[in-house]
Amino acid sequence: MYNFKNDYAEGAHPSILNRLIETNLVQQSGYGEDEYGLRAKELLKEKLGNKWATIHFVSGGTQANLLVISSLLRPHEAVISATSGHIYTNEAGAIEAVGHKVIGIATTDGKLKAADIEKVLESYNLKPHVVKPRLVYISNTTEMGTVYSKTELQDLYAQCKANSLLLFLDGARLGHALMAPGSDLLLEDVSRFTDVFYMGATKNGGLLGEAIIFNHSGVGAEFDYIMKQKGALLAKGRLLGVQFLCLFEGELYLKLAQHANLMAAKIAQAIKKEGYHFLSLPQSNQLFPILPMALIQKLTEKYQFYIWQKVDEKEAAVRLITSWATPEDVVDELIQDIRLFAPEGVPVNLS
Amino acid sequence: MYNFKNDYAEGAHPSILNRLIETNLVQQSGYGEDEYGLRAKELLKEKLGNKWATIHFVSGGTQANLLVISSLLRPHEAVISATSGHIYTNEAGAIEAVGHKVIGIATTDGKLKAADIEKVLESYNLKPHVVKPRLVYISNTTEMGTVYSKTELQDLYAQCKANSLLLFLDGARLGHALMAPGSDLLLEDVSRFTDVFYMGATKNGGLLGEAIIFNHSGVGAEFDYIMKQKGALLAKGRLLGVQFLCLFEGELYLKLAQHANLMAAKIAQAIKKEGYHFLSLPQSNQLFPILPMALIQKLTEKYQFYIWQKVDEKEAAVRLITSWATPEDVVDELIQDIRLFAPEGVPVNLS
Amino acid sequence: MYNFKNDYAEGAHPSILNRLIETNLVQQSGYGEDEYGLRAKELLKEKLGNKWATIHFVSGGTQANLLVISSLLRPHEAVISATSGHIYTNEAGAIEAVGHKVIGIATTDGKLKAADIEKVLESYNLKPHVVKPRLVYISNTTEMGTVYSKTELQDLYAQCKANSLLLFLDGARLGHALMAPGSDLLLEDVSRFTDVFYMGATKNGGLLGEAIIFNHSGVGAEFDYIMKQKGALLAKGRLLGVQFLCLFEGELYLKLAQHANLMAAKIAQAIKKEGYHFLSLPQSNQLFPILPMALIQKLTEKYQFYIWQKVDEKEAAVRLITSWATPEDVVDELIQDIRLFAPEGVPVNLS
Amino acid sequence: MYNFKNDYAEGAHPSILNRLIETNLVQQSGYGEDEYGLRAKELLKEKLGNKWATIHFVSGGTQANLLVISSLLRPHEAVISATSGHIYTNEAGAIEAVGHKVIGIATTDGKLKAADIEKVLESYNLKPHVVKPRLVYISNTTEMGTVYSKTELQDLYAQCKANSLLLFLDGARLGHALMAPGSDLLLEDVSRFTDVFYMGATKNGGLLGEAIIFNHSGVGAEFDYIMKQKGALLAKGRLLGVQFLCLFEGELYLKLAQHANLMAAKIAQAIKKEGYHFLSLPQSNQLFPILPMALIQKLTEKYQFYIWQKVDEKEAAVRLITSWATPEDVVDELIQDIRLFAPEGVPVNLS
Repeated sequence: MYNFKNDYAEGAHPSILNRLIETNLVQQSGYGEDEYGLRAKELLKEKLGNKWATIHFVSGGTQANLLVISSLLRPHEAVISATSGHIYTNEAGAIEAVGHKVIGIATTDGKLKAADIEKVLESYNLKPHVVKPRLVYISNTTEMGTVYSKTELQDLYAQCKANSLLLFLDGARLGHALMAPGSDLLLEDVSRFTDVFYMGATKNGGLLGEAIIFNHSGVGAEFDYIMKQKGALLAKGRLLGVQFLCLFEGELYLKLAQHANLMAAKIAQAIKKEGYHFLSLPQSNQLFPILPMALIQKLTEKYQFYIWQKVDEKEAAVRLITSWATPEDVVDELIQDIRLFAPEGVPVNLS
Repeated sequence: MYNFKNDYAEGAHPSILNRLIETNLVQQSGYGEDEYGLRAKELLKEKLGNKWATIHFVSGGTQANLLVISSLLRPHEAVISATSGHIYTNEAGAIEAVGHKVIGIATTDGKLKAADIEKVLESYNLKPHVVKPRLVYISNTTEMGTVYSKTELQDLYAQCKANSLLLFLDGARLGHALMAPGSDLLLEDVSRFTDVFYMGATKNGGLLGEAIIFNHSGVGAEFDYIMKQKGALLAKGRLLGVQFLCLFEGELYLKLAQHANLMAAKIAQAIKKEGYHFLSLPQSNQLFPILPMALIQKLTEKYQFYIWQKVDEKEAAVRLITSWATPEDVVDELIQDIRLFAPEGVPVNLS
Repeated sequence: MYNFKNDYAEGAHPSILNRLIETNLVQQSGYGEDEYGLRAKELLKEKLGNKWATIHFVSGGTQANLLVISSLLRPHEAVISATSGHIYTNEAGAIEAVGHKVIGIATTDGKLKAADIEKVLESYNLKPHVVKPRLVYISNTTEMGTVYSKTELQDLYAQCKANSLLLFLDGARLGHALMAPGSDLLLEDVSRFTDVFYMGATKNGGLLGEAIIFNHSGVGAEFDYIMKQKGALLAKGRLLGVQFLCLFEGELYLKLAQHANLMAAKIAQAIKKEGYHFLSLPQSNQLFPILPMALIQKLTEKYQFYIWQKVDEKEAAVRLITSWATPEDVVDELIQDIRLFAPEGVPVNLS
Repeated sequence: MYNFKNDYAEGAHPSILNRLIETNLVQQSGYGEDEYGLRAKELLKEKLGNKWATIHFVSGGTQANLLVISSLLRPHEAVISATSGHIYTNEAGAIEAVGHKVIGIATTDGKLKAADIEKVLESYNLKPHVVKPRLVYISNTTEMGTVYSKTELQDLYAQCKANSLLLFLDGARLGHALMAPGSDLLLEDVSRFTDVFYMGATKNGGLLGEAIIFNHSGVGAEFDYIMKQKGALLAKGRLLGVQFLCLFEGELYLKLAQHANLMAAKIAQAIKKEGYHFLSLPQSNQLFPILPMALIQKLTEKYQFYIWQKVDEKEAAVRLITSWATPEDVVDELIQDIRLFAPEGVPVNLS
């Protein structure tokens, strides 16, 4: 059974493990002061074209989200998020547990637009009986696999700045967003058009690790205290430092994401050719095709994946995820099986 | 300008002030151990027909809500509420500030039904990535002025018990609910079909004060610690004790609510007669008539009230609230003005 | 049995109750926007000689403490307090419940000195593994009945400013401190030499109420949101507004404290004359005489008070508190009883 | 410069890295459901002799502490800890940030005794104005390098049970405690005489990881929700699973700790022979010798370590830590240097 459920079913890219072995017995300072991490941060700042950035490495996405938000908000301030946002639904109340309401906005594609923000600001105006919206949380790629264009991000940021809101981008899959076919968004743009964001290694070749980047001086002050307090400051910070150094000293980070995207695009292409539709635009390594139940049934005998949403009695959307580790021959086999297992009478080439 | 904006524009019923004066110099124990409060609690338990109840007096509704919820929930547990619920929108994030997510359910009448609960339980099933729904919060009267029937409350409670959920009723206006014309709900029923609820004095004749009632032994243990910790334990608890004693040793609490309801019913009757509709069923002392903008404009010259919701270019729903202190002659004048100021061509007797 | 346990055993000064009756049916805006409160705030600003002050009325001391501290501190910031400080021992963990460590400093007289602060700053230097001290909490009068001189407060404030610390003064008994015999501290000084403080009415003639004063613009921004969120914003804010207006439009506040102090001084004088010592300097309305157990035993038959601390087998310190409501004849009787009940052989005139 | 500052200056034991490589591309379930972790948990339960135990793997000690404590305590409940305890001083307020006061007890050796607990319970009796002590936190080895005997742990646990207190043991260095020369404490004892404890891998051969063990069914229910909420549930939980499997399928965990202890004992022996005293009994891999400043000065030219505490003008206690990775030849060199660099006139063989 091959697992298309997620992009964290394997360990790490071999070059990361090799680097851990090479550096293993070199004594290093703890708590993020290791030389590998310091070098990785310098490298990242160069790639971002942002010398004012301050960077911290943490273990995972939920941790990154609660650290950033608890660090930046006063008690009465709230977060705006799409209802599909990871913090809104899938973090067991992590943001509320640090004291803040997450205001949800329903979307069709997982992306927030400037108009969404405006609407929230209008409804949260009965001071001081309502929470005060203060930070906008977006994910790129989104939880629906879609990506923001440069213009979309720029517009959203302008709206935030016009309303004294902070813009925070969850980049657990930022590599996949940057390498999405047709994307015009560059890493430098992300650093220019957000206040804070992070780049995930966990889902793109690392054992664990997210690099949190505060783009402007001032924002993110004394963040190390917050990290320590929430249990996020690893004694052996070298584990994170070595990984980010390995991912960013060359182009490994982008290449791994590109591979995942290519594998997904190949699958998406084949699914389209068979005439099936998608719940959301297939743009990155997460696909949400709507398939006949009969086909889904057959596929579950050979592959693991989530049935995401029932559409009607005969169809459901499933989620297929590829990763840096997905072998092309497995992808080819899946494509073949989608064709083979297709029930008769299914519309072809209509999407 | 007469104020129909809320039911807390005046001080307290005169008999309460008199009692404060009579008892003023009698030395009493502090922190809720005064004899007035102790007697009031015994009286209340008798009226509830529930000898296992434990009762605490606090200052206001938001305070009561955050105390009860923080006392009963573990960190990962969440609250289910109508999106019109006071805790969902109008408490500046009080529940999130004590760590808990409030899951919102859109309703048309402000009331939760058993089916709503079921739907939430189905969508919050991806353990441990989602919060765990644990407490259902309802208001009676609701924030839309509607009331629960005995059967509605009983059904909701059964659904809660079947799913290990606690049912918590915000009774900031419970007097008005119990005295709503046609209501079959008795105070004893509220104690039987909820786990915890409170009865508000602030909006029904008191200077301040809500009586929190835990209906079953065990639920609500060590609540006094929580009260102290959240700043809710008044040094001069006698201020609350005297008021509740005064409200409950006779029928004052119910009579004051009845007066408010009667004043509202009279207004509602007149508005219906003029042919206007309502945003929600007029059942208690909060009315949400939909009136022509021209009429609203005229009325604002003589009365204070909230414009609640724009319906279209020509109409809006307004909120009119009566209280124990609303004089009947002002009500009569308002009714006359509604007739007088009615723009020509408005439909009559159609509602 | 007369109660010398505390200064909140009675209701309110009669003039306050009368004012509540006079204003009772005048409709007012809710949530702190009543005209009485607005006028009281203007009056207070005049008395403080501080036009930049922003003032909020809340119900009690624990509430005031947690509101101010949660409003001003970031998550990793901590409070410095004497171990006798109310927040350190007697608020059921209120400050920790809003997320902040209280660093305790042992003192002999309940007062913090500049050197105490320096010592804390030296020991909390292992960034980011320790909390960051950010706010100094003091009480005046202290929990041991002592008072700060103008120079003491000024020095402490200078130390705070030199180290980017906020100084917060808990004035639950500030009236008693200002009126302490020999005190050179004026209300204006408190406003000049702290960042934020409050003046208590609960223990000085009010039914409930503390006036929180932020002395500088900027400090205390959006405090009303925090008040609402923590359940401290009373719907009928007039209850607080009327009381503070009544206490401050003349000299009532100071006169009531003066009476309490005079009654205490009379008792202290008599106790000294009998040759007994005190646990702390008798300066205000809280006395901690060290008395023989035999005498204590006798006194408990006629008076209520706390046995504060055992000294040895034969002696204990007790706490006697007087208030605005303590009648002079009861004081005289107590003094007589202290003389009458004194065991033979007790040293006289040695203190 | 060799680093004796801590036991996390190197990476992981090579066998752990090898195992990570071997298992790297085997697809596994995420979030702690990998087969390696499941097997490691079964193994641990066998070694504990406790089939009711429930086990969770997390990243670090501060994280483990805040997870366990926030999971077990209600809002008004507090923790008792030695003032040398990690949670009391070195976690940036992690426990207060999840809402709980840590009551500090000064000790000479870092260990809590039954009598300490009794004293706290006596002073925290003014319900509901004080916090309620509910959990006792101890470290083994302690932060001073000392260890609990079986009897000491048993007595403390009995005291806890007699007072409805939970006993929680921080075992960041539990391996070192179990392998301390002369220790009679077995792993099974730890599971019998505590309610919850953890065993650290971070400081004993792992890259990161602490195994939290709840000893009784009921305690620790729904802990996975808390882990997710606090950002402690790693997507690639295999990283922890593989490490604990590797450490516990043989005797690696104990052997690594034994090596660290032996290296420390050798150093301690030599220091004693030179006539120096220790701040605390040298029992495990943390040593606190009191050395002349002149000697310390010389040693800092070749070795890194903390100057822990000034004793007087001429002497200070330093902290020397050994680990699984400390080479014996470096230890021998340090011993030689301690002898060589000793200032003349130092007392020999007096300790």
